[in-house]
Amino acid sequence: MSELIIWTLDWVPEGPRGFVRDLRLRWACEEAGLPYAVRTIPFDDRATNHLDQQPFGQVPFLSDGGVQIFESGACLLHLARKSEKLMPRDAVGEAQTLQWTIAALNSVEMVSVPWWFLEITGAKENGLTGWLESRLTHIERELSAREWLAADRFTIADLLMTDVLRIAEVRAFGDRPATAAYIARITSRPVFKKAHADQMAHFAAADGARC
Amino acid sequence: MSELIIWTLDWVPEGPRGFVRDLRLRWACEEAGLPYAVRTIPFDDRATNHLDQQPFGQVPFLSDGGVQIFESGACLLHLARKSEKLMPRDAVGEAQTLQWTIAALNSVEMVSVPWWFLEITGAKENGLTGWLESRLTHIERELSAREWLAADRFTIADLLMTDVLRIAEVRAFGDRPATAAYIARITSRPVFKKAHADQMAHFAAADGARC
Repeated sequence: MSELIIWTLDWVPEGPRGFVRDLRLRWACEEAGLPYAVRTIPFDDRATNHLDQQPFGQVPFLSDGGVQIFESGACLLHLARKSEKLMPRDAVGEAQTLQWTIAALNSVEMVSVPWWFLEITGAKENGLTGWLESRLTHIERELSAREWLAADRFTIADLLMTDVLRIAEVRAFGDRPATAAYIARITSRPVFKKAHADQMAHFAAADGARC
Repeated sequence: MSELIIWTLDWVPEGPRGFVRDLRLRWACEEAGLPYAVRTIPFDDRATNHLDQQPFGQVPFLSDGGVQIFESGACLLHLARKSEKLMPRDAVGEAQTLQWTIAALNSVEMVSVPWWFLEITGAKENGLTGWLESRLTHIERELSAREWLAADRFTIADLLMTDVLRIAEVRAFGDRPATAAYIARITSRPVFKKAHADQMAHFAAADGARC
């Protein structure tokens, strides 16, 4: 098996630590038991220093032998082909995993990240709040009915939706007990904790070099 | 082969006609030569009348024998498994198609649709304009360098990115000649024109019943 290499930044400030999206790839590899290495590109000049690797100047991207792939969602789908632990192989389970993976990216994160962007850039009134509330209400209804999004088991759909909801700080939006329980349950998985701790340690280790 | 059924609304007002996302599925089926039927759910009460089929109350969704799947991006990836015309089968071509398909959904549409939402809901200043400009600039640079996003040929990545850029009315953002040429070239494909005309006819045919 060719070596999987997860590419991320060498350092980030404290704010985004624990949320940089290489976490999604670390976590998926840990879930599947796929060995991987982490390599870095410099934080300074990140907007332009790796456009040949990632056309929007973002991280992560993934190397897999002769294949290189960007977009965390695409990397997860690529990794899912390597392990049934990430996505079931029957047609119905696969379709359910696929639809909820894309829903996390394109129905929830498509609202939550721009909402968050407006919040941190100091918009006087956030015109996306009502839309985000609506999406979170739909998610709460779904999660009230079952433990997992797809196929009655953990899949990359749960990995991604949990990470999306975690970043959106869903608890800022009032009482959504099923969503809160879902996030708490899934982030209590030892492999999530390991991936999270590894990312925190990775960025902390670079602090010394910058001082 | 089981029959593919694309589910959409029975009617929409004139504004969204030609842009409802069932177009993406019609177009993909036409590209691949996959036979399909179109069935409908009522426009009235659409927010709640099909939550058991689509948990956000949206369209389209796709039936494929015993499989049902929502999210247009997920439906495209599902259809791509049926035809090499939609996605190449070699590892590099597949990864390129996957990353650009997700980029359309999660790096471009994640900004363009909320930007558009703020525009139509009358935000005094649109706090997403700078971010959208930046994403479109990255896309312009990519499209200046080549004809197709992935694998030197048409794939679902081009289908989806074209539809995303088309909806974003990219030309409102100044002179982006490579992007404009890309949209013009891809929407001139006869199968796009057929899918577009079919959607327009579908909604127009319902006008009479509502008068």
